[in-house]
Amino acid sequence: MWHDFKKIAALLEKGIGDLGYARIDHTRCERCGFPEVIYGEGKNVDQITGIVTEIKAHGAPLLCTRIDADKAAAVKNVHPELEYCPISRCLLHRVPVTPLPGFRVALVTAGTSDLPVALEAKHTLELVGIGAALLCDVGVAGLHRLLARLDELADADVIIAIAGMEGALPSVIGGLVPCPVIAVPTSIGYGVASGGFAALAGMLGSCASGMTVVNIDNGFGAACAAIRLSRLVRGKHQAAAAK
Amino acid sequence: MWHDFKKIAALLEKGIGDLGYARIDHTRCERCGFPEVIYGEGKNVDQITGIVTEIKAHGAPLLCTRIDADKAAAVKNVHPELEYCPISRCLLHRVPVTPLPGFRVALVTAGTSDLPVALEAKHTLELVGIGAALLCDVGVAGLHRLLARLDELADADVIIAIAGMEGALPSVIGGLVPCPVIAVPTSIGYGVASGGFAALAGMLGSCASGMTVVNIDNGFGAACAAIRLSRLVRGKHQAAAAK
Amino acid sequence: MWHDFKKIAALLEKGIGDLGYARIDHTRCERCGFPEVIYGEGKNVDQITGIVTEIKAHGAPLLCTRIDADKAAAVKNVHPELEYCPISRCLLHRVPVTPLPGFRVALVTAGTSDLPVALEAKHTLELVGIGAALLCDVGVAGLHRLLARLDELADADVIIAIAGMEGALPSVIGGLVPCPVIAVPTSIGYGVASGGFAALAGMLGSCASGMTVVNIDNGFGAACAAIRLSRLVRGKHQAAAAK
Amino acid sequence: MWHDFKKIAALLEKGIGDLGYARIDHTRCERCGFPEVIYGEGKNVDQITGIVTEIKAHGAPLLCTRIDADKAAAVKNVHPELEYCPISRCLLHRVPVTPLPGFRVALVTAGTSDLPVALEAKHTLELVGIGAALLCDVGVAGLHRLLARLDELADADVIIAIAGMEGALPSVIGGLVPCPVIAVPTSIGYGVASGGFAALAGMLGSCASGMTVVNIDNGFGAACAAIRLSRLVRGKHQAAAAK
Amino acid sequence: MWHDFKKIAALLEKGIGDLGYARIDHTRCERCGFPEVIYGEGKNVDQITGIVTEIKAHGAPLLCTRIDADKAAAVKNVHPELEYCPISRCLLHRVPVTPLPGFRVALVTAGTSDLPVALEAKHTLELVGIGAALLCDVGVAGLHRLLARLDELADADVIIAIAGMEGALPSVIGGLVPCPVIAVPTSIGYGVASGGFAALAGMLGSCASGMTVVNIDNGFGAACAAIRLSRLVRGKHQAAAAK
Amino acid sequence: MWHDFKKIAALLEKGIGDLGYARIDHTRCERCGFPEVIYGEGKNVDQITGIVTEIKAHGAPLLCTRIDADKAAAVKNVHPELEYCPISRCLLHRVPVTPLPGFRVALVTAGTSDLPVALEAKHTLELVGIGAALLCDVGVAGLHRLLARLDELADADVIIAIAGMEGALPSVIGGLVPCPVIAVPTSIGYGVASGGFAALAGMLGSCASGMTVVNIDNGFGAACAAIRLSRLVRGKHQAAAAK
Amino acid sequence: MWHDFKKIAALLEKGIGDLGYARIDHTRCERCGFPEVIYGEGKNVDQITGIVTEIKAHGAPLLCTRIDADKAAAVKNVHPELEYCPISRCLLHRVPVTPLPGFRVALVTAGTSDLPVALEAKHTLELVGIGAALLCDVGVAGLHRLLARLDELADADVIIAIAGMEGALPSVIGGLVPCPVIAVPTSIGYGVASGGFAALAGMLGSCASGMTVVNIDNGFGAACAAIRLSRLVRGKHQAAAAK
Amino acid sequence: MWHDFKKIAALLEKGIGDLGYARIDHTRCERCGFPEVIYGEGKNVDQITGIVTEIKAHGAPLLCTRIDADKAAAVKNVHPELEYCPISRCLLHRVPVTPLPGFRVALVTAGTSDLPVALEAKHTLELVGIGAALLCDVGVAGLHRLLARLDELADADVIIAIAGMEGALPSVIGGLVPCPVIAVPTSIGYGVASGGFAALAGMLGSCASGMTVVNIDNGFGAACAAIRLSRLVRGKHQAAAAK
Repeated sequence: MWHDFKKIAALLEKGIGDLGYARIDHTRCERCGFPEVIYGEGKNVDQITGIVTEIKAHGAPLLCTRIDADKAAAVKNVHPELEYCPISRCLLHRVPVTPLPGFRVALVTAGTSDLPVALEAKHTLELVGIGAALLCDVGVAGLHRLLARLDELADADVIIAIAGMEGALPSVIGGLVPCPVIAVPTSIGYGVASGGFAALAGMLGSCASGMTVVNIDNGFGAACAAIRLSRLVRGKHQAAAAK
Repeated sequence: MWHDFKKIAALLEKGIGDLGYARIDHTRCERCGFPEVIYGEGKNVDQITGIVTEIKAHGAPLLCTRIDADKAAAVKNVHPELEYCPISRCLLHRVPVTPLPGFRVALVTAGTSDLPVALEAKHTLELVGIGAALLCDVGVAGLHRLLARLDELADADVIIAIAGMEGALPSVIGGLVPCPVIAVPTSIGYGVASGGFAALAGMLGSCASGMTVVNIDNGFGAACAAIRLSRLVRGKHQAAAAK
Repeated sequence: MWHDFKKIAALLEKGIGDLGYARIDHTRCERCGFPEVIYGEGKNVDQITGIVTEIKAHGAPLLCTRIDADKAAAVKNVHPELEYCPISRCLLHRVPVTPLPGFRVALVTAGTSDLPVALEAKHTLELVGIGAALLCDVGVAGLHRLLARLDELADADVIIAIAGMEGALPSVIGGLVPCPVIAVPTSIGYGVASGGFAALAGMLGSCASGMTVVNIDNGFGAACAAIRLSRLVRGKHQAAAAK
Repeated sequence: MWHDFKKIAALLEKGIGDLGYARIDHTRCERCGFPEVIYGEGKNVDQITGIVTEIKAHGAPLLCTRIDADKAAAVKNVHPELEYCPISRCLLHRVPVTPLPGFRVALVTAGTSDLPVALEAKHTLELVGIGAALLCDVGVAGLHRLLARLDELADADVIIAIAGMEGALPSVIGGLVPCPVIAVPTSIGYGVASGGFAALAGMLGSCASGMTVVNIDNGFGAACAAIRLSRLVRGKHQAAAAK
Repeated sequence: MWHDFKKIAALLEKGIGDLGYARIDHTRCERCGFPEVIYGEGKNVDQITGIVTEIKAHGAPLLCTRIDADKAAAVKNVHPELEYCPISRCLLHRVPVTPLPGFRVALVTAGTSDLPVALEAKHTLELVGIGAALLCDVGVAGLHRLLARLDELADADVIIAIAGMEGALPSVIGGLVPCPVIAVPTSIGYGVASGGFAALAGMLGSCASGMTVVNIDNGFGAACAAIRLSRLVRGKHQAAAAK
Repeated sequence: MWHDFKKIAALLEKGIGDLGYARIDHTRCERCGFPEVIYGEGKNVDQITGIVTEIKAHGAPLLCTRIDADKAAAVKNVHPELEYCPISRCLLHRVPVTPLPGFRVALVTAGTSDLPVALEAKHTLELVGIGAALLCDVGVAGLHRLLARLDELADADVIIAIAGMEGALPSVIGGLVPCPVIAVPTSIGYGVASGGFAALAGMLGSCASGMTVVNIDNGFGAACAAIRLSRLVRGKHQAAAAK
Repeated sequence: MWHDFKKIAALLEKGIGDLGYARIDHTRCERCGFPEVIYGEGKNVDQITGIVTEIKAHGAPLLCTRIDADKAAAVKNVHPELEYCPISRCLLHRVPVTPLPGFRVALVTAGTSDLPVALEAKHTLELVGIGAALLCDVGVAGLHRLLARLDELADADVIIAIAGMEGALPSVIGGLVPCPVIAVPTSIGYGVASGGFAALAGMLGSCASGMTVVNIDNGFGAACAAIRLSRLVRGKHQAAAAK
Repeated sequence: MWHDFKKIAALLEKGIGDLGYARIDHTRCERCGFPEVIYGEGKNVDQITGIVTEIKAHGAPLLCTRIDADKAAAVKNVHPELEYCPISRCLLHRVPVTPLPGFRVALVTAGTSDLPVALEAKHTLELVGIGAALLCDVGVAGLHRLLARLDELADADVIIAIAGMEGALPSVIGGLVPCPVIAVPTSIGYGVASGGFAALAGMLGSCASGMTVVNIDNGFGAACAAIRLSRLVRGKHQAAAAK
């Protein structure tokens, strides 16, 4: 059996771009539907620039998250066509993609301070051709702010609900609508809510069943989950159409 | 100064019933508005029976919380006129009190499983003459269950909102009504919500400002907080009437 | 605005079955796609029996989770047609439902000890007409056990990946397949892994993007999330067919 | 029912000032008795300036908490009439309000380092016309410092007790006075007391019953709770007067 | 150097009673002033009985803590002269010791439920000839209960202050008296105070300087600390007398 | 690439014994040097019995950990030749193995209560032919108990150091000897030491470098780590001999 | 009783220096043996300067802890005779005190990085006339470094043992010497040892009985505990001499 | 016995270089196989420079970890021949050592951001003459990246597996290879994975038995563990050769 593992290794090596300090997974988009993200923290400018060069050479869309303005500027010196969003701290390279029409994602935030996470998700979705509506500052402390937007929520195919503090927004949404709800806790808050752990616990412990949760501040991950859903919907369509 | 402390000590000794293993604070009701509670856990039958005897001898109302059915039965062997509530695990002795008319407390629970905590609060309030309405199972996963009872919430002078799991109920109520809201997290839940810590964090971290919180499962404490409010209202009344 | 809230209250009251200690949300299935579950912990036999009677009277499918064998037997004395699964501690009442053909859920567990959670999910899915394949004991410590089943994973529309201990299974699956992956940490483990918190943290912190997570041991919740997905797929189908 | 929710949405929309990144809840003051606070952390200068403009346009009092001196100065460039308190990091805009006479709030701190939290509460109260007395540095390590001020405590209608470290001050006060006591843990402390969690746990776990607690460093929230109490007292007065 | 360690090993072996499963440290009393305690949890009856036999053979006083009534009875079958205290779950064998006159330890508890920990300390002290006064149920929620006993506190050489819940008692005592104060948190409490962690954090984070703390429920350890103090005092005496 | 994974799947299936609820990894011993362990918790008697039957049919040694006496007895009804150790709660089936001479493992425990974990390690080692010496109760509170055994420590090839409470034993040993030291924290202890987390943190945070750690109470895992070492030593031997 | 409290208040007021933002406890030295410390964190230069002026006016020794070099320099502009120690971040004002001869405190640190905490203790002791020997860098990873200093440890009246990382040093010392041992965990360490919590847990959970513990990095508190001991010894002397 | 300890003390003193603030353990290399590391955090430039001078005077290899570029430059002013690695923040002084041929360590990282920890390990190994291969960025989210390198893993004598986030890499490796696997969690990650605690828990809780773990980011410690293994192998060789 050990021998079998080794035989396959040679084949697998093909899809990998090896930079020494990084091994770029060029088939991830094919396997999972979204390109490899560059997690900006803990990497220096040289490493990021090198990975960007490698990914761009393969013509893939590119997203580097959690990268500060200074580092981003240094990378843009080499790759000036990249786009930087200072609110979400994302560095982007958009490439033409086939849009996925008729798939509606709603990005809903409890407060204005949750906007960076929402934008990280929005950028990720747009990179693969999915548009997303943004509904900001509709937290449960002023319930009518949310209820006033029920039409938009009811029309969404997927809702990404983003909240810090006590994180109650997704629970309330989850009880109102039947579509998939992906909850994103944010690190907005202080005291018991600092770091986003109260929001995370609230979302996981929610009695609004069928809601799922990603890591704190993980707008990218929530978007990827929505992309997985979109592929499922699209695939089923195609299967149906093929019949 | 040391001398001064000692001088007052002799005076203070008067209000205390000393049983050796316990020192009963007979003036607490006069000072704080509610009688000394007997915390049942960690006390044996002999100790509880002795304290009950001492308190009854002073004619005060009596509440022993967190006492199991077996222990309660053993205490009732000596004090058969006590009343036991198996759901809230409270042992009670009611004495005639002057009711406080026109002060309305609403006890609201997110789920049926939160009932024991609500009943502990209800017993405490009734012992000092305050009636309380009970609204059960109106958690935010089915928001209309709550909205359907808005009239009753709007009429309350104080709301005690009791919830386990993610504990979002008080946040939503706090954003709807202007009266004091006392939130009680319960230990109902599992995983991240086990022990009530997710609910507690959610309530403390809530963006619905002006809500206050007590310890997990502390129905007695929430009721005492409501009693403190009732005394304030009553006192202001009397001051106004006296003018 | 206050007035507006109250106006809607009257309308809302209709869909609720009020038992005093519980308010049954009879329109949840219509709103969210799955019936109200009875969370068995913290409820006594009388309460559960009463809720069962109310739900059955409306002809809905019924699921009571986390109910011990003794309590279940007592409820079955009144409702003998209920079915009890001792491994998952679920009490069920199946009603005829329209099956959802061509929607494949794979329930994958890391170890044999994760089976109770997998079965809770399986029962929930079957109650609404979704069949689920069960792949047991394919944890990452023997990677070939998992790789040998890749075909089945690749064919699934949704994977519910269930693991205790370090919870690495969903990370590995998430990197292999493009479909939605719902991760369920279980409380199987000891020391740092006790209670399921290591598995939960591992799943949330996973670098396999696009995976979502539910609460520890929450097989029911994972199934509900899959049901939300199935409704989305079905709805898109119907929309396409209607064109 | 779904239809009913949508009908009411149009009505609800009226009370909301929508800035895209924020939805100002202009009826919160009417509903809950205090204006919407701007939580300064996680918002940039443009966002805060925009929200300030919107709130001022409605003539409401304005409070922005947790805003650093630099950001505050930038906002004051646009709105020079705002007032900044560097100790509590509050940005304020006072508008004429009807004072609430005869309602006495005592703000009591355990140490000098707790002053910022006390001032945040003081500013909040003053914005709605409630004056508050400040008793600083009376922590329990020098009990006579507290006992010397008993007269002032006994005269208060509400006590807001603010303490870091072990947070024992509210416990001691709660056992001495019958009025409502709102405890605020502060993040002053180090080691086990760092972040304010020891103080928070001490206050929630207190055996001085009837005390309620808000989040760590939440001076604003404690003041809002006192405002809710004041409205209750005032409402009862008016009801009594109307008879 | 390695060689040096080995040379001393032969010498050291002399003071040890080797039972295979346990190595009794017969010189601990000589070195540290108190005999080796048998920690009862995790040991079976055979092991405890064997250790008791070994210690008794050396004529030392004997203390086994945290031993349930059943296990204790089984050990007493072999060693009927042992004494069992069911409240503190201690099994004792007293031997004649020279009392230490004029050294006064005060054992002060916040509540009646803290009694078991106080008794564990009392038994330990008495085994080596130190008497201890017991002041029960003088917690800070009724401050006058404590102040009334100030005389007794002021007369003590060492105070062992025992409290659960928020654990504020030692902070208050530490600010009143100049003698060494050893604080013992107890596991009495629920919610945030469960397990004794709130009390522990409160005691460690106390602003009453010069107080020291032992582990939760560790009455034995607090007594040993007092014994170390008594030896210091006695030693200084003897040194002074010898001059 | 996907295709490549699938190709290997067919090959891999061979080494797996599929029982439905469990997939036995028959090549683990070949791959990793120790047989698959049956983790007894969370498995019922039927499942354990079935797995035992499957493993025994392949002639492999067998270890089931964390199995209570009752369950073990039920399994022994079917497989009477199994051996049960009540102290370590292990169920064993020994098969003839080639002993590994000259490889000395020392199992060192801080206290008698750590014995169950030491025995779990001892059984695991013996199953694959490695003998282990047991040094009990040599914790650092009586340092000479340890120093007296230095010869035995110095002679060991690998030391497995097992301790609860503060877990200081491995730190001290790690500073004395040059051989590999595997530290095992145990759940023996109370208060801050309960569950073994203080010992775990102490061992991981140790300044005695080069010590490695396994999970709390994981005697089996520590033994497996020693087995991995023994294979390395043996392999090097054989390589050297082959030259 | 209420009346009694108030009567004493007037008397108590005498010993307090009221600065508005601070209430100086001028009798603390008389009550507890050490002067009030100024906790530097969270106080601004104006507040510290004011408190220094007040304390100096009473001729008491003065210690301000946790004050950065910048702040200290600003205070020294007003009070140039103060002394600043940059390693321990202490600001001191020494006044002539009667030394306590023959009372030997040993300050022992596990590593060089623990020096700041040791110096904070040393400064505190010296302010009240107690000299302290410093034994640095004798942690248990090199046991002979400690054993080589046994003579000095054996001669001490009190040992203050200071350690970060796993904090095992006091456990080992506690098992070697019979004098009081005060353990101080430090925040030196990383990963599981970061913040000092592993050291704290190790010290509290130690099986070396009779050791007591103070908060993380609390060199001041440990010194105060030693001062309390010294007063006890001195008092006993004087009592003996008076006979 | 006390006497015996003291006798050995004089002998022990020989191997220690006493700098007052530090006691250099010059025989550690002889005892444990690797030189004393200087933990850079919490030490100032003077202290580090002094220790470097002392160690260099003894001709030992030298490693200072966790030292910032600024501090390192200041030390290099005095000791210009030292080498600084900015990625791992190590300051090194290499001395000629006898290489250990044929002992292969593989350093495997899950991501590029884990590189600093891997380099700290690599420097440590090289200082004592052990070469190490570096395999970067082969985390489990792209399993084929790892499988493609199986040959290299299978050839290693020891694998040091380094991962942040969910830390699943060592679990997968541990199930594939029979050699010793030392897992190092890194602090790379955010939300639940921040600080490295999720990775640590995942590694300790792993079901891949026989893997051992060191503290978060502890590349030095993992290397020391590998050095201990290499000594064992070398020693066995020599013993075999001597026969």
